[in-house]
Amino acid sequence: MLKIAYIGNKGYHSDNVNGSTRGDKRFVACAVAGGTKDEDMSAFWEYIKNDHPDAKYYADYIEMLETEKPDVAVISPRFDLTAKVCMDCAKRGVHIFAEKPVATNQNELCELEKVIKDTGVHFVAMHFLRLGGAFYQAICAVKEGAIGEVRMVNAQKSYKLGQRQDFYKKRETYGGTIPWVGIHGIDWIYTIVGKRCVKVNALQSRVGNREHGELESTCLCQFTFEDEVIASLAIDYLRPAEAPTYSDDRVRIVGTEGVIEVREGKLYITDCEGLKTPVITKGKDLAMEFLEGILNNTECEITSKEIFEITKLALAAQQAADSGEAVLL
Amino acid sequence: MLKIAYIGNKGYHSDNVNGSTRGDKRFVACAVAGGTKDEDMSAFWEYIKNDHPDAKYYADYIEMLETEKPDVAVISPRFDLTAKVCMDCAKRGVHIFAEKPVATNQNELCELEKVIKDTGVHFVAMHFLRLGGAFYQAICAVKEGAIGEVRMVNAQKSYKLGQRQDFYKKRETYGGTIPWVGIHGIDWIYTIVGKRCVKVNALQSRVGNREHGELESTCLCQFTFEDEVIASLAIDYLRPAEAPTYSDDRVRIVGTEGVIEVREGKLYITDCEGLKTPVITKGKDLAMEFLEGILNNTECEITSKEIFEITKLALAAQQAADSGEAVLL
Repeated sequence: MLKIAYIGNKGYHSDNVNGSTRGDKRFVACAVAGGTKDEDMSAFWEYIKNDHPDAKYYADYIEMLETEKPDVAVISPRFDLTAKVCMDCAKRGVHIFAEKPVATNQNELCELEKVIKDTGVHFVAMHFLRLGGAFYQAICAVKEGAIGEVRMVNAQKSYKLGQRQDFYKKRETYGGTIPWVGIHGIDWIYTIVGKRCVKVNALQSRVGNREHGELESTCLCQFTFEDEVIASLAIDYLRPAEAPTYSDDRVRIVGTEGVIEVREGKLYITDCEGLKTPVITKGKDLAMEFLEGILNNTECEITSKEIFEITKLALAAQQAADSGEAVLL
Repeated sequence: MLKIAYIGNKGYHSDNVNGSTRGDKRFVACAVAGGTKDEDMSAFWEYIKNDHPDAKYYADYIEMLETEKPDVAVISPRFDLTAKVCMDCAKRGVHIFAEKPVATNQNELCELEKVIKDTGVHFVAMHFLRLGGAFYQAICAVKEGAIGEVRMVNAQKSYKLGQRQDFYKKRETYGGTIPWVGIHGIDWIYTIVGKRCVKVNALQSRVGNREHGELESTCLCQFTFEDEVIASLAIDYLRPAEAPTYSDDRVRIVGTEGVIEVREGKLYITDCEGLKTPVITKGKDLAMEFLEGILNNTECEITSKEIFEITKLALAAQQAADSGEAVLL
């Protein structure tokens, strides 16, 4: 049985882990702790306590780690603290399921990568959109050669802004829209292209962010990979509140033998047989993949190496947008 | 009555002018000439002769201009010759309806701009996609304020490659995929944003061009406008031959109050009323707009100033892609 602890609840997806494991006797929540001592965990704590009456609440996650000795930590503190909390867990031998991005600057990312390597804990970040039905099926189709050689990828992330907590309004605590929102698109691009990225260019603007301080409301990234494979990513927070869904996530993959597209959760394949819209049959639960990997001592389908490479790319894109200069990798 | 002469038939749309004016007594075709003396105009000549039995054929367009003294020239020679033919016509007081791009390098473009200004002839290029039903309606909606302030535009041009004539395979005669295909997307972006572009970055690759020599099969452009409005354009020739239509043209416009999108000839507006798909009721015929403008001595909805600005942007993007460096404007 794996004892799971939850640290912080600033992202969106910690509760998905509890949802995925509910009623599965292999997993039990042992504790909830704030990412900082003043983080309001009350609603999340009520949610966990309801499913796990023996779980305990801690204001201080270090005290929790020392006392409860969990097997796994689900980590989602204020975004600038993610890397530090991950390191605190890894150094105590706790496996890590962390919010993305796993670090908000390259120095902390390097440090974290070293700690994860040295401690050998299982480690994955919540890049769960890669495994979402239509996206996962698209990626599998590309890997199976459905459209020949990939030559270009165009990805899109569009979110409703709503009214965000104050820490989104400062770069120091938020980390930037490219690593926070865009990283999912970068994950798709990286996974689909499967080559080394050599250059990234990016643009961004805060105009139109409705009093969200330093939060960037629109961003564009351009990636050059080996063999002249090119990719673009458009990111925005300007999806109207009244739109039918929270996000408008897309990817379009242009290959030498066809085009695959994911839009509104549907899959479109255009190849030598014309346009097809296959039924979505694939998709995986990242939390369950990761937790079962710990039990079986196998690496998760999304590897820690990939998490670090993708986060490096996201931070390089943020650097390109901040500096107005291309970043060579 | 306006006498129309046709010079060259390397583009796609010269015959549209004849189609638009067929049976309209205000317009008559007086002549057809090759853009070069060896250009095979036989099929096009048959087509024109059929509607206009009094028209004449010339191998040499200069001889044709001197002899026939047409009012208007529809110009579509090998792409590298467009600027020169335009200047030869303008200097003889002939109004110009030219294939895009109107020049394949900045020097010729500057020279042409000066000649058009000095001679005062009516001048437009075949940027007809701006007036196409869904695109035109989208642009009108944006101008009417349907989505507030435009903050980001994402455009797409995707063509079937097929087997192109040899002159497409050399940069010298083709001019590049960004100015040839991409210019339509740049026209949408320029028109929609309505501000000065200050910077362009671009990527391109010839890989996957199926023995089309120097023709670029994939390109990505990134534009920064004043007030941090940003735009992207994806271009490719990799649309499968079996796809339902020749091209997959799109534009997505992200504003502070909504998102407008054109895809597969349809219009999608997401705003404070949710998602709407208005019926396409607008769209204009560029050739008829232009020709009637000559008769009425009014400028065409697409102005010569815009044609020059958009072509400058397209050539700047080509320069950015060739050099691997951002071009500041």
